[in-house]
Amino acid sequence: MNEHEKNMTEMGQRARAAFSQLSAATSEQKAMALTAAASQLRESQSEILAANAKDMDNGRTNGLSDAMLDRLMIDAQRLDAIASAVEQVAALPDPVGVIIDRTERPNGLIMERVRVPLGVIGIIYESRPNVTADAAALALRSGNAVILRGGSEAIESNRAIHKAMVAGVATVGLPEHAIQLVQTTDRSAVGAMLKASGLIDIIIPRGGKSLVARVQEEARVPVLAHLDGINHTYIGKAADPAKAEAIAVNAKMRRTGVCGAMETLLIDQDYPAPGPLIRALIEAGCEVRGDDAIMELDPRTVSAEMEDWDTEYLAPIVSVRMVGGVDEALAHIAEHGSHHTDVVVTEDEALANQFIQRADSAIVMWNASSQFADGGEFGLGAEIGISTGRLHARGPVALEGLTTYKWVVRGTGQVRP
Amino acid sequence: MNEHEKNMTEMGQRARAAFSQLSAATSEQKAMALTAAASQLRESQSEILAANAKDMDNGRTNGLSDAMLDRLMIDAQRLDAIASAVEQVAALPDPVGVIIDRTERPNGLIMERVRVPLGVIGIIYESRPNVTADAAALALRSGNAVILRGGSEAIESNRAIHKAMVAGVATVGLPEHAIQLVQTTDRSAVGAMLKASGLIDIIIPRGGKSLVARVQEEARVPVLAHLDGINHTYIGKAADPAKAEAIAVNAKMRRTGVCGAMETLLIDQDYPAPGPLIRALIEAGCEVRGDDAIMELDPRTVSAEMEDWDTEYLAPIVSVRMVGGVDEALAHIAEHGSHHTDVVVTEDEALANQFIQRADSAIVMWNASSQFADGGEFGLGAEIGISTGRLHARGPVALEGLTTYKWVVRGTGQVRP
Repeated sequence: MNEHEKNMTEMGQRARAAFSQLSAATSEQKAMALTAAASQLRESQSEILAANAKDMDNGRTNGLSDAMLDRLMIDAQRLDAIASAVEQVAALPDPVGVIIDRTERPNGLIMERVRVPLGVIGIIYESRPNVTADAAALALRSGNAVILRGGSEAIESNRAIHKAMVAGVATVGLPEHAIQLVQTTDRSAVGAMLKASGLIDIIIPRGGKSLVARVQEEARVPVLAHLDGINHTYIGKAADPAKAEAIAVNAKMRRTGVCGAMETLLIDQDYPAPGPLIRALIEAGCEVRGDDAIMELDPRTVSAEMEDWDTEYLAPIVSVRMVGGVDEALAHIAEHGSHHTDVVVTEDEALANQFIQRADSAIVMWNASSQFADGGEFGLGAEIGISTGRLHARGPVALEGLTTYKWVVRGTGQVRP
Repeated sequence: MNEHEKNMTEMGQRARAAFSQLSAATSEQKAMALTAAASQLRESQSEILAANAKDMDNGRTNGLSDAMLDRLMIDAQRLDAIASAVEQVAALPDPVGVIIDRTERPNGLIMERVRVPLGVIGIIYESRPNVTADAAALALRSGNAVILRGGSEAIESNRAIHKAMVAGVATVGLPEHAIQLVQTTDRSAVGAMLKASGLIDIIIPRGGKSLVARVQEEARVPVLAHLDGINHTYIGKAADPAKAEAIAVNAKMRRTGVCGAMETLLIDQDYPAPGPLIRALIEAGCEVRGDDAIMELDPRTVSAEMEDWDTEYLAPIVSVRMVGGVDEALAHIAEHGSHHTDVVVTEDEALANQFIQRADSAIVMWNASSQFADGGEFGLGAEIGISTGRLHARGPVALEGLTTYKWVVRGTGQVRP
């Protein structure tokens, strides 16, 4: 066991002890702890801004891009937003203790499945220091202990935010080790986290593709994440052209850098208005990479190569293919999709239901823009991430996704014959 | 990629294709497929019994114990029971398509979480050839494709049962690759299964501790299983002595070899009748290994060693400790338990609720015998196993545990502002 593994084992043991203490806490205590943490964040403004100034100085010295520096920066207004977000999480309903189902057996035993926290959650993230507060708040609201590992470029900011959060939590008597921050910026600490099975119950990576890929590859602990959002919109033969154009343009162009953005458009060969649809995308500023049938529709299109069907552009580019029907659309999605969000546009309800049943995606939409793929838009409150895995939680994951259940059996002395 | 990995990749790809076809099947088709499979099992009696006779011959030659030979043996009556079990699974309600929850957003979007199959399930099991039929039936009922890997000693029986099942499934037009059997008995094939992430969604090991331990250690795919059932019964100070004795004796002695058997008894120091409780266990034929306080109660007790607290006896032996209260009981369970089934016996409801909230076990019981830890007793119908993991499914796992969900979003042309 190397030094990082030893440190992680100690952090994990402290986290498990804290989790055990949290399991005796009431919902009100957890909410109060977060409200107190938000107050501490506001009271620690000068300390947090000074810490952030150090990170910004180091970032400039190390040649961070303007975009990265902007993500890193905290001013009074952004700190207020961070504190408010913590207060909003405090106000969300606590999923813990909710009874999922209940049966009474002929022998009088009452079986209930009751929501309980997942346990110890590891969050690995990059750049934005607000994640330190957000992720800790979501974890604590749902009764979990959390181990945070932020990016090295934000270490001073993360330490200051973490210190304030812990101070708040401690004022209401909850364990300070409920929220721990990995203090070293050594990358080996991440490796130690990924192997800490038995201590960490789930790892949630938040950051770029290379981070998520590394975590999914190396982790011995379950991972909740998505790597790609290669999202398809299938325009059926009976699609309403006005809806089809509005949805396709919005799904691609509203924000091109989000994981819910459309990357591939599949147009049914019997859809009556493919030309205007391609034109609308081009006129919205989108590069259209099409197959032969699509290229015949508009001279401004370019030819799609094989790799285009497997590319998440996150840019104003879309790959477009003409398909022979819903079977071919679904086969394309099965081969090239990433199980994130896929959409069917049609006025034919039977076709929509067929697509909904057969598309193996975390989110399947009918007549709506894939850009709605977001916990807030789903009414879940704050989201910890979107999962394309099949197990545990799928699609947008919020507080409920940070819980599991236990079986509670109430008897009156029953023994098994 | 070695030969076994190549074979497993091909099986996995065929399974995924079959899973995709299954996702278009109706509940009735899946039930009909299982009914047909049961008929085929009955019609193939002579073939299956002949295959089993070969396994029995080989088993005798290879010196299998009488107990193992008995587990391996299939006669007409047992085959009928196997077929009936498949029919019973066909009659269970299909969890697929059930709407878990539904919300309508202010913009008119309707969000539903709908149950869908997990995908491709790998089952690794030993000895009993009935698992070939049972596991395949549970997987198919819930819309999953399955890859079965049975013990080498039952290979002929498994092949014959598998052949009959597939023949039945094919008669109703469902894909024959929905149920695949690993044909080689080479152990490397198990290694290839455990690494088949992206092709197999979950592995369920059914067998002895060494099998489960190997699977949990090596798997790169999520595993649903329990390794140990180190189950505790805590007798609170306000326990009813008659209930305490009946529950403790039943939890330990009804069947000592099941995973729900009690292994450790924790008696509150203020419980008024510890002597009669120990006497009842001894008189039921149980060896009592106690701490000093327990040993003072009865001269027939022996001294518990440190390792006793971490031992799953699966035998008429119990470790017994006197504890200072519920905190000490919970601390002992947190340190030595295996998150399977833990029980509190008390007439004090507040204490029971405290224990229920704080014990981190898949199943927590109040005033009942831990031997009720079984999917049938929970009213779930057939069970695929009991899980002590925290993610996905906990405790007894039946059809619903073989499903996940997808988000279905129904709109009328909404785009995101």
